[in-house]
Amino acid sequence: MHTSTVFPDQIQTLVTVINLVRTGQATTRPELGQISGLGRSVVAQRVEQAIHLGLLQNGELGPSTGGRSPRQLSFTADRARFVAIEFGVLHVGIAVLDLDLNPRMQSVQEWDIASGPDSSLEFVASIVEGLLAEEPVRPVWGVGVGVPGPVEFSTGRPTAPPIMPGWDGFDIRRWFESRFGAPTFVDNDVNLMAIGEFEALEVDHASDQLFVKVGSGIGAGVISGGNVHRGSNGAAGDVGHIAITDRSDIVCRCGQIGCLEAVAGGWALAREGAIAAAEGRSDYLADALETHGEIRPTDIAQGARAGDAVCAALISRSGRTVGEMLATLVNVLNPASVAVGGSIAEAGDLFLSVVRETVYRRSLPLATRDLRIVPSRMGHGAGVLGAGRLVAERVFRPESMTSWLPLTSPRRAFWAVYGSRAS
Amino acid sequence: MHTSTVFPDQIQTLVTVINLVRTGQATTRPELGQISGLGRSVVAQRVEQAIHLGLLQNGELGPSTGGRSPRQLSFTADRARFVAIEFGVLHVGIAVLDLDLNPRMQSVQEWDIASGPDSSLEFVASIVEGLLAEEPVRPVWGVGVGVPGPVEFSTGRPTAPPIMPGWDGFDIRRWFESRFGAPTFVDNDVNLMAIGEFEALEVDHASDQLFVKVGSGIGAGVISGGNVHRGSNGAAGDVGHIAITDRSDIVCRCGQIGCLEAVAGGWALAREGAIAAAEGRSDYLADALETHGEIRPTDIAQGARAGDAVCAALISRSGRTVGEMLATLVNVLNPASVAVGGSIAEAGDLFLSVVRETVYRRSLPLATRDLRIVPSRMGHGAGVLGAGRLVAERVFRPESMTSWLPLTSPRRAFWAVYGSRAS
Repeated sequence: MHTSTVFPDQIQTLVTVINLVRTGQATTRPELGQISGLGRSVVAQRVEQAIHLGLLQNGELGPSTGGRSPRQLSFTADRARFVAIEFGVLHVGIAVLDLDLNPRMQSVQEWDIASGPDSSLEFVASIVEGLLAEEPVRPVWGVGVGVPGPVEFSTGRPTAPPIMPGWDGFDIRRWFESRFGAPTFVDNDVNLMAIGEFEALEVDHASDQLFVKVGSGIGAGVISGGNVHRGSNGAAGDVGHIAITDRSDIVCRCGQIGCLEAVAGGWALAREGAIAAAEGRSDYLADALETHGEIRPTDIAQGARAGDAVCAALISRSGRTVGEMLATLVNVLNPASVAVGGSIAEAGDLFLSVVRETVYRRSLPLATRDLRIVPSRMGHGAGVLGAGRLVAERVFRPESMTSWLPLTSPRRAFWAVYGSRAS
Repeated sequence: MHTSTVFPDQIQTLVTVINLVRTGQATTRPELGQISGLGRSVVAQRVEQAIHLGLLQNGELGPSTGGRSPRQLSFTADRARFVAIEFGVLHVGIAVLDLDLNPRMQSVQEWDIASGPDSSLEFVASIVEGLLAEEPVRPVWGVGVGVPGPVEFSTGRPTAPPIMPGWDGFDIRRWFESRFGAPTFVDNDVNLMAIGEFEALEVDHASDQLFVKVGSGIGAGVISGGNVHRGSNGAAGDVGHIAITDRSDIVCRCGQIGCLEAVAGGWALAREGAIAAAEGRSDYLADALETHGEIRPTDIAQGARAGDAVCAALISRSGRTVGEMLATLVNVLNPASVAVGGSIAEAGDLFLSVVRETVYRRSLPLATRDLRIVPSRMGHGAGVLGAGRLVAERVFRPESMTSWLPLTSPRRAFWAVYGSRAS
């Protein structure tokens, strides 16, 4: 049988071999055999097929374990590209990644998500095409997109997103698949930040983790057994509108009263900061108001770091309120770690220390026994890395293989790679 | 190659074939080929091996799809037994199940978990042996055990369980494995109830679900993508001690103040019911106190159903408090459904209607758009069924095959089923 032909019943083992080398679990044919349980001839044939596909390559001779030294194998991450896109409310981050998720080209642009899907996606696609044109031609094998709202993951459509006017139900997946001819996965931005954050932290891949973003709004990404918990309507992690008080004077931008965001979100802190500035209670914020014409959430964070008492009180209240919410989540989910990111969390030690104190005081001892509460390390890069990780994880599954195998003739009874059985 | 020999690289495909028939996804050899992507000769050989193992059997000729009618295959659920055990605080449920989880023998006994592990496990094992002796001899291929406390799932040991004195760190898994020679899995009782409940509800197996038990204590089982979310220390779902108030007069049996259980748990309701009985505010409870010498949580539930105003007010308050906690969980987890069980929830429509009203009022519209809040259908049987499902799901994985394949000689270079290559 010619090695450049892949039959359907070889797909599973071919993908196994590629993934073991890609993820660094095996670097030689004997190791592949040991780990996969596949016979020597099957391993040899699959490796040849992967080499023909341009996904593996032979390298140096490795250390001998008694007999002939086995040849090292490596994954050809440069074979193709993934595109990772993260929409924020007022910016978009774009990266072209190799198959190992190393960024080859990247760009961050100001962009208002409220411009709607048509102009937003056209804007992003033209930037992607520009980035792709800057290096030798490589096929795009997958696209990952994050948006700041709930997403029906199975279809790649935003679902009633509160701060994305015009996007409700828009088929983002199909738009990118027809533009780039590559499988596309769309997810909520905080879910992707969670994936990216814990990818970077190199935690146990099957573990339970929690990521919370405290910026203008507040959202959480729940990792359960290594997978994002997205919920039945893609609304999981939408903690910003949990009712935390019955006080009727706490009005949220969503129209409800008593939401977490209306007490602890950056926009609510900025609203109160503006009042303090107007009332002459904070010189720092009065200066900021004069400089920018408004008080932004980052002004509160920076003010707290600069020692302004009003800002520090606001950050402290936010940390305590977020901490109480997190204590509940820690009791329910018992994560190994909680990573805290976003512009308010980046106020520094004050916010995190209040969060820590509150969580440890109000959670069960067992749930906090080994708990680590850490600042986000990845910052804004987490979402883009997460989008790439999401794509890589999906594309290298056996059932996705047809999307990236360059098939010559879909009408054949077997799947040919490049050439037929007779070639 | 003789079909009664299974080589390591055949395990994966053999288990695939067995599982496709076992779960009803395929009933003929051609269907097995279509679904698995395996070639005809591989399917034929694996089916013969499974028949030799006593796990599949040939049946009637099925409907023809053009050519010769294919022979129906069925799974031999009677081949072996699973043992399912669910410890409550004051009872233990035991079932001997066939491989399709049909109960063959069962028993429910009063038993105080505070007796400690040695006498408890000896008590249960002797009952299991009695049940097994009542029918023709079958090997035990797996044991599932539920206990009312947090469990480190990977080792099968309770972790600091508050109401199981003497059990902390006890190796339940090893105890059963040495007694019955079968792989044993230990989990928290509410996790197993969640598995059993949603197994019985036949929901989408990859879905997100939530089970909450409101009995003497309060616990939740979180299903994420079809899998139990157990948490880093096995403490996930331990919602009974979430701090819901700062009121210092609400003292919990755990020693903390303001816990959910201390307001809404059956033991707290019973405590208040006893005061009402003593103060002459409830004839119903005064009668119950005289009859039983104490007020039990079930007295409050039955009193509410009988129209007693004090009991109804307690059940209503419990429903509202549990509903507020569930509203937070619904926002965070966005489950497809919430099933509510336990002796307090079984008070009937009152409890559930208050829970529903509270959750719908305090959760995000998107998270409740398709949400179903339903009473538990399985009642006490959920935990035992869940223990069986847990075992079946684990035992029929390729990596578990060696635990139930009757190997003749572990020293051979290949795994023989019954006979060697030469036989």
